[in-house]
Amino acid sequence: MPKESHVDVLIVGAGPAGVMCANALAAAGIDVKIVDQRSSKISTGQADGIQPRTIEVLQSYGLAERLLKEGCQMHMCAFYNPDHDGVLARTGRAPDITAPTARYPFEVLLNQGAVESIFIDSMNRHGLAIDRPIVPASIELSNDPVQLADPFCYPVKVTLDRLDTPGKQEIVHARYLVGCDGAHSWVRKTLGITMDGEQTDYIWGVVDVIADTDFPDIRNRSAIHSTSGSCMIIPREGEKVRFYIQLSDSDVLDPVTGRVDKNRMSPEKLLEVARKILRPYTVDEPKMYDWWTIYIIGQRVASRFSVNERIFIAGDACHTHSPKAGQGMNASMNDTHNLAWKLVQVIRGRADISLLKTYELERKKYAQDLIDFDREFSTLFSGKPRTMDNDDGVSHEQFLRAFQAGGGFTSGIGVHYMPSAITNEIHQQRAPHLIIGERMPPQMFVRAADARPYDIQDMLPSDTRFKLLFFVGYLIEERLRELNTLSEEMQDPSCFLQKYGYPSKGTAQGMFDIITIMSGDKEHVEFTRVPALFRPHWSKVLLDDTDSTGNLGGGAYTRFGIDPRNVTLVIVRPDGYVGMIAPASALDDVGGYFAAFTIPREDSIEVAGP
Amino acid sequence: MPKESHVDVLIVGAGPAGVMCANALAAAGIDVKIVDQRSSKISTGQADGIQPRTIEVLQSYGLAERLLKEGCQMHMCAFYNPDHDGVLARTGRAPDITAPTARYPFEVLLNQGAVESIFIDSMNRHGLAIDRPIVPASIELSNDPVQLADPFCYPVKVTLDRLDTPGKQEIVHARYLVGCDGAHSWVRKTLGITMDGEQTDYIWGVVDVIADTDFPDIRNRSAIHSTSGSCMIIPREGEKVRFYIQLSDSDVLDPVTGRVDKNRMSPEKLLEVARKILRPYTVDEPKMYDWWTIYIIGQRVASRFSVNERIFIAGDACHTHSPKAGQGMNASMNDTHNLAWKLVQVIRGRADISLLKTYELERKKYAQDLIDFDREFSTLFSGKPRTMDNDDGVSHEQFLRAFQAGGGFTSGIGVHYMPSAITNEIHQQRAPHLIIGERMPPQMFVRAADARPYDIQDMLPSDTRFKLLFFVGYLIEERLRELNTLSEEMQDPSCFLQKYGYPSKGTAQGMFDIITIMSGDKEHVEFTRVPALFRPHWSKVLLDDTDSTGNLGGGAYTRFGIDPRNVTLVIVRPDGYVGMIAPASALDDVGGYFAAFTIPREDSIEVAGP
Repeated sequence: MPKESHVDVLIVGAGPAGVMCANALAAAGIDVKIVDQRSSKISTGQADGIQPRTIEVLQSYGLAERLLKEGCQMHMCAFYNPDHDGVLARTGRAPDITAPTARYPFEVLLNQGAVESIFIDSMNRHGLAIDRPIVPASIELSNDPVQLADPFCYPVKVTLDRLDTPGKQEIVHARYLVGCDGAHSWVRKTLGITMDGEQTDYIWGVVDVIADTDFPDIRNRSAIHSTSGSCMIIPREGEKVRFYIQLSDSDVLDPVTGRVDKNRMSPEKLLEVARKILRPYTVDEPKMYDWWTIYIIGQRVASRFSVNERIFIAGDACHTHSPKAGQGMNASMNDTHNLAWKLVQVIRGRADISLLKTYELERKKYAQDLIDFDREFSTLFSGKPRTMDNDDGVSHEQFLRAFQAGGGFTSGIGVHYMPSAITNEIHQQRAPHLIIGERMPPQMFVRAADARPYDIQDMLPSDTRFKLLFFVGYLIEERLRELNTLSEEMQDPSCFLQKYGYPSKGTAQGMFDIITIMSGDKEHVEFTRVPALFRPHWSKVLLDDTDSTGNLGGGAYTRFGIDPRNVTLVIVRPDGYVGMIAPASALDDVGGYFAAFTIPREDSIEVAGP
Repeated sequence: MPKESHVDVLIVGAGPAGVMCANALAAAGIDVKIVDQRSSKISTGQADGIQPRTIEVLQSYGLAERLLKEGCQMHMCAFYNPDHDGVLARTGRAPDITAPTARYPFEVLLNQGAVESIFIDSMNRHGLAIDRPIVPASIELSNDPVQLADPFCYPVKVTLDRLDTPGKQEIVHARYLVGCDGAHSWVRKTLGITMDGEQTDYIWGVVDVIADTDFPDIRNRSAIHSTSGSCMIIPREGEKVRFYIQLSDSDVLDPVTGRVDKNRMSPEKLLEVARKILRPYTVDEPKMYDWWTIYIIGQRVASRFSVNERIFIAGDACHTHSPKAGQGMNASMNDTHNLAWKLVQVIRGRADISLLKTYELERKKYAQDLIDFDREFSTLFSGKPRTMDNDDGVSHEQFLRAFQAGGGFTSGIGVHYMPSAITNEIHQQRAPHLIIGERMPPQMFVRAADARPYDIQDMLPSDTRFKLLFFVGYLIEERLRELNTLSEEMQDPSCFLQKYGYPSKGTAQGMFDIITIMSGDKEHVEFTRVPALFRPHWSKVLLDDTDSTGNLGGGAYTRFGIDPRNVTLVIVRPDGYVGMIAPASALDDVGGYFAAFTIPREDSIEVAGP
């Protein structure tokens, strides 16, 4: 008899999407099991670049520091094209990131194994390890609507094969299943979810080496269009460099089957192609070949991301695209970053299961937009350069324009979630420059109590809480009266703060975190005059002023377009995205926002963490 | 027969001066023994504040990150005085640090035990642990001039008592001894070194508590002069707060002996005094009393810091002063930071023993200046405030002026070492704003190869190397010719670079590290044109330009007053202080600088690390 167990969430696949999901759930005290078919974690290769927005997300889990310590930074992009004589030369350089609000205005390059280790070590600290080598053998999902609607039910039954013990199976009953099992996702196929989109004809090779070269931009991203083909250089951690190289059919296709045959290639042959493209620059015989592969770009999105909000797919399992747009693991990790807090709130009994519909709503649209951008960008990249002989080729200006226009995608900063149960735009005009549906941008404040500069993003950790940012303006008498009235209203049992204000319980954080942002200057402000409800701790009151050097902070009200003569509430979702903005007079609207997906405390059978 | 052993350096005392010394020596591969009388490390109390310069120093050893993570930051200082009605009120606030070039413009508060742990853990990683509980029983120093002058001799013989095994002794033969055994230094007394200066009449109490209060500046440094006495508030890590409280004789003096009697005081009584001073603000009954003490301020400096450059004293063993100036462990750690690299170079056989004379020269003058400042400042602090009834009292303006004028001391940034064998001012005019004898200030550059912003201080680790900063200006043809000539000259055997250019050997770093700083912009610069001698690695070439966001870096040539139409060499000592500046045409002067204390490679019997 196979062992049987019950878990809140079963995650299949421990790649970037899987480990992000598992860590976020484990940190919130959710009962998780994560399985992977590999017998040990990968140590190299595959995806590489971490975008600015993903660094912010890692920072919100307390994991960016290690990423920044281990990774290589990419700040500039160099563009090389044939000159008038057809000889490869640098056309120009530009910032690699064109997202003005990025907190980390660069990409971090670190191999996928090292990135995954950051999450694996973190989840270990929360008591979770990856179960491996394991593959799922079958999935059964109840089709009883009563069971599916009952949050306490375990409608997913998965049979797992232990690969290290032939014939050994175990059965897991899960409330939710997340398939993070890659581009060839078994979960997706088993559920019959189709992939929409197409395969391109572009064949690319990738090779990581350590080699001396006289190429002057070897530590920058370099987009190279030569008469011998196209190549992208990406600097890597240590002294490594990655070459993405465009291949021709004859390089890699089996003439009989017409399919890509990896045996026709080798890292040496790949580098030889790169050398031709890079001429007249030279690349010495590498001291080390680290990793290589070849692939055909496919640009496809799954037709749905969920079955009955009980089984989800995430990451490469639901979208594939070229690595040229610098997406790699970013889209994957952000899928489960989006999903995790929603699962937590539903599993805790604090949110309605319908909240989970917003996962597909938000992430499928993003994946579709991404694929559209990638299609345009990689066509340009794979195209021949414009030269004297080739008037139809891609010009540098054309390429640069596409590169910079795509800054929102390549940085990850441009993600904008559409109106839904958790994104309410009705009072957008109260802070016209703080865009509802986008992530709360970084902004330096000083803490009112000690004038220590603090980035607002560091007060918005991914801890499953909704952050209530009260922009209270100047503490004149009129404002204090207003705040005292507001404080009283918010203590009324009918107010959302009381109705949905689940307190902390075990490992489960409370529902809300209040942060107050004053206008004024640090030399004179008296933060102890703020009513107690708005300063649960001295560290929670911020001031829109510069720090003691005058270099950091200040100007947030102006930047966001918030009038300091009013009280404005900004609600930041647990994933760091602005969910709603409201004037103090619109508490009912705020109540309506939470009513759309939150279960009132009095109606909830709350399930706390251990 | 007691066990006998030989070590390069024996350190007595594992307080801040001792652990700084031990860690720096161990990191350089020197054979060190460090002993302490306590059976385990202290866990609380005593000194507290780490100044901006000391944070920079910790950063240079790779240790600032943990300090910043564990400590509390103090950015502002609030001043409280009696108002017109004699009621305590805030007169104003000002930045706590008034040193415009501070890289870390704040103080970090962290208990001495935690600070020492940072060093202890680091030295453990270098294979060194503290031997304890041990006290020295006797010291013998050879008075044979031949022995004293012979760098391979062990002229110091110390007998140690193991306190955990009564009667058990061991004998250590050391080349050098460093006494870091505190204000009552046994080493100092045994050597008959006197302390010059005087005891004041000011008696102070200190108490650390966690307590609720309505005092609005409890998370700032607060200097309080009330009609009931003076008090300084220092916020601490966690929720702790420290009160420094002026006491009257009747509070603490034994009426019979006239001496301070700690039994007459208690933490409760101390807080009671603080409460009176703080009225009308209230301090609740503390949740916790953490540590307390009382003391009389003594302001004294040892008559000498060394005996024959074989035995040294450092830290409180050679200077005592009030904690009001925020010195605490700072002066102590900076003493041995100054001494350590000199010991290393002499022990390695690369520098003449006379180099060690610069320790007393530099640190005694600093200690004397510090005591003078402290005397003035603590007199002001202990004085009665100016009120309607007391026209002779200390005015806020007077106090604030002294506080800000002392910014160089309270920040540690103002340290200026006088001309000596290692501080050569002859070419100061080549960079008039980069002060020889002061620490190399922080300055952001971008790396030419990858446009990554980098603070120059992070390229000046305390790794015992002299950093040769070549400011080469714009890479026009004329400059390139000049650089090529210079490169040839520097490869001549007679040049200092060859004569004193000890290579790395075992754990011993090489003698020099070359860093090149170009003018130009990151969009166009071609760093590979710099002659190879000036770019030993791609990461060693910097550019005086802003980063890709335009927010960091740029303007260094102007700030330092360096003409980008010339080549200027800035020599930074291993401790981060500017030792010399010279034009490219003055290679002989540079040779003279090193000749003053460095042993030519051909004459050296070099002793490498393990």
